[in-house]
Amino acid sequence: MKKINVGIIGFGTVGAGTVEILLKNRDIISSRVGSEIIVKRIADLDIQSDRGISIDPGVLTTDVSEVLNDPEIDVVIELMGGLTRAKDFILEALGNGKHVVTANKALLAECGKEIYEAAEKNRVSLGFEASVGGGIPVLKSLTEGLSGNHIKTIMGILNGTSNYILTKMAVDGLPYNKVVGEAIELGYAEDPPDLDVNGTDTAHKLAILISLSFGSVVSFDSIHREGIDKLTPEDIQFADEFGYTIKLLAVAKDHGDTVEARVHPAMVPKDHIMANVNDVYNAVYIEGDYAGPTLHFGLGAGRDATGSAVVSDIITIARSMVQGAADMAPPLAHIKALRDEIVIKPIEELETAYYFRFSAIDKPGVLSKISGILGDNQISISSVIQKGREIEGSVSVVMLTHEARESNVKKALDLIEELDVLKGETIMIRVAQS
Amino acid sequence: MKKINVGIIGFGTVGAGTVEILLKNRDIISSRVGSEIIVKRIADLDIQSDRGISIDPGVLTTDVSEVLNDPEIDVVIELMGGLTRAKDFILEALGNGKHVVTANKALLAECGKEIYEAAEKNRVSLGFEASVGGGIPVLKSLTEGLSGNHIKTIMGILNGTSNYILTKMAVDGLPYNKVVGEAIELGYAEDPPDLDVNGTDTAHKLAILISLSFGSVVSFDSIHREGIDKLTPEDIQFADEFGYTIKLLAVAKDHGDTVEARVHPAMVPKDHIMANVNDVYNAVYIEGDYAGPTLHFGLGAGRDATGSAVVSDIITIARSMVQGAADMAPPLAHIKALRDEIVIKPIEELETAYYFRFSAIDKPGVLSKISGILGDNQISISSVIQKGREIEGSVSVVMLTHEARESNVKKALDLIEELDVLKGETIMIRVAQS
Repeated sequence: MKKINVGIIGFGTVGAGTVEILLKNRDIISSRVGSEIIVKRIADLDIQSDRGISIDPGVLTTDVSEVLNDPEIDVVIELMGGLTRAKDFILEALGNGKHVVTANKALLAECGKEIYEAAEKNRVSLGFEASVGGGIPVLKSLTEGLSGNHIKTIMGILNGTSNYILTKMAVDGLPYNKVVGEAIELGYAEDPPDLDVNGTDTAHKLAILISLSFGSVVSFDSIHREGIDKLTPEDIQFADEFGYTIKLLAVAKDHGDTVEARVHPAMVPKDHIMANVNDVYNAVYIEGDYAGPTLHFGLGAGRDATGSAVVSDIITIARSMVQGAADMAPPLAHIKALRDEIVIKPIEELETAYYFRFSAIDKPGVLSKISGILGDNQISISSVIQKGREIEGSVSVVMLTHEARESNVKKALDLIEELDVLKGETIMIRVAQS
Repeated sequence: MKKINVGIIGFGTVGAGTVEILLKNRDIISSRVGSEIIVKRIADLDIQSDRGISIDPGVLTTDVSEVLNDPEIDVVIELMGGLTRAKDFILEALGNGKHVVTANKALLAECGKEIYEAAEKNRVSLGFEASVGGGIPVLKSLTEGLSGNHIKTIMGILNGTSNYILTKMAVDGLPYNKVVGEAIELGYAEDPPDLDVNGTDTAHKLAILISLSFGSVVSFDSIHREGIDKLTPEDIQFADEFGYTIKLLAVAKDHGDTVEARVHPAMVPKDHIMANVNDVYNAVYIEGDYAGPTLHFGLGAGRDATGSAVVSDIITIARSMVQGAADMAPPLAHIKALRDEIVIKPIEELETAYYFRFSAIDKPGVLSKISGILGDNQISISSVIQKGREIEGSVSVVMLTHEARESNVKKALDLIEELDVLKGETIMIRVAQS
């Protein structure tokens, strides 16, 4: 049986994890593939640092063309990250008839169409299980395990850093800035942590989940996104009193003509299984029209978990080669997508329940003024907490609404903002509904 | 593109669900496969009952050979259940060069070897995603998504009926017999419910999970199994006080030379994600050496969810056919298994923590006698609850132990049984450790 040669671009954390698994679990991998997988070449600018892996130094190169142009290399693994150069390398590898595996979520979310089309045109495979949910085999679950379903709803906790921060804020009652500072010190968050905490990374992953669900790419910029930086321990505490946990959630729902797609902090009912996904763990909740609700949970990042996902793609490709499949499954797992274009529903048309926290002056009539404006805008209140406890010289008026329309909520909050009873910023958090 | 013809044997609940999905989701299925899937023939003894599906009556037959011997049928779907006849039909279909999809966990657990070998010999695919965890794509996660991992630990809540009963006992504080009676009335449990509640169904599923993890069949009879019929609301309440939830758990751990494999009620720490799997839901917790802990959660049974899993297997096979794969992946997803034989570790060698509830007479010295015998047998106690509350004329002495050896526990409980201080049966529940 022909051996299968892989070349790796990017020998950082995930690259090292991938190589380690290919070496250490060589026995189980060849048992599953029926052929041996050889790491023929690893390209990185730094070929001096010790990655703790015993590998023939002759495998290492600083010249990426030694990976891209080696006719013996069957599969190119792109793990360098970034956009422009990674994209060039992937397109070149695909053009050279090589299968490609990548963990590059930003690239796929922002430039996926060009890459998917290049893979199809060149009739090679593109694997990207590692781009969403780290070690959780969620993309394969979507494209294989749930393949007979119309996907109705996706809800994801897709960023381990944000989830760690929110868990820590909830458990220890600490403010956002303090927890972020500690997370950076501990190496759990990047410095600055923007892409993780502002929802961008989560939205990248949601774009990929949507593309696989519907077999067609989505415009990344049309996904509404908000981060977690405005949340306070008080909101987490009030949410708890109402029976909710706050999570940074990615949500997508199929409405037929349009798809709802948004990333923001959300109130998750405490008895929902997503509310119990804590610390750096990730989870994706997928509801199919026949499978019903499913949850896919695990480590969303890290050398070993992400390496595991990369290796699973290599194994899938190697198995196809061994089985002599003439044509590989297309990247989005649809031979012909049901929709050419995915139209994202504007956030203004969203209908959901809301949590509001108003920082108001402590005077009679405040609640009546606020609730009057809400009522004028078809927003009905389901419960209210008005507490005497002062936060920075104001009292909190906290409420949960029944289902309301986002455009009405914006209008009402703007009007309430103009009242002379508010002393600080109003917090609005959407309630998750599955 | 050639259309792909399937023939179904067994038009019961899951059969009807499968046909409905193939018809109603025809658009998404052909979009994903690149070819149309046609239900050419359905065999069942009853072809009169209305299944609520509009299908050409000419498709129905009472003669199974019209499925098995039709040269135009590519894939045979066995959904009749049972052992002997189902096995004969599957072997005949495989022998005729047809791919086979089945949901028959009992058959695969008890006679898997013969069936897997027949599929390999005839170079056709055998799909059985529906045999474990209903709509949860857990088998594909094991064989595809986690394929680069040595599987270290599996813990499963694999029987929805048992989990429903335990949840109901916990929430409503009702005794086992009352909840089972209601479950039978509501159609949530079979009458009699034995296979579900005595651990047999769970052990069937565990046998399949073990075979896929290690690429080799396991002797079903060597899996230790206990049911949930001896549990009382008191035990559930005491477990709660200690910080645990009681679940009917399937556990498998790889010890290198041997594999631990057992099914029994177990105490699951309340902060473990498995403790939050309630009602009829199923979940499988899988720990790989690199992926780390993953959880796969969803509906473990039912017409739609199980139908979804059957259809996913049909799609995988149809895709392979469209791609012209010469050779299919073998049933256990290992070209050559790492072990020829899986040796199950005897339950006597298990080391874990234990919960004991002794029904003792209310006299001084009881606790000292019991703890003396435990100590003599290298069992050390980590916490004790001794309550005055009388249950049927005796008081409960409840304890949690540190890790101890099962053979020592058996010896100690036998000795304690001989004391004149016990008034009722002693309850022993193992603590889950992941």
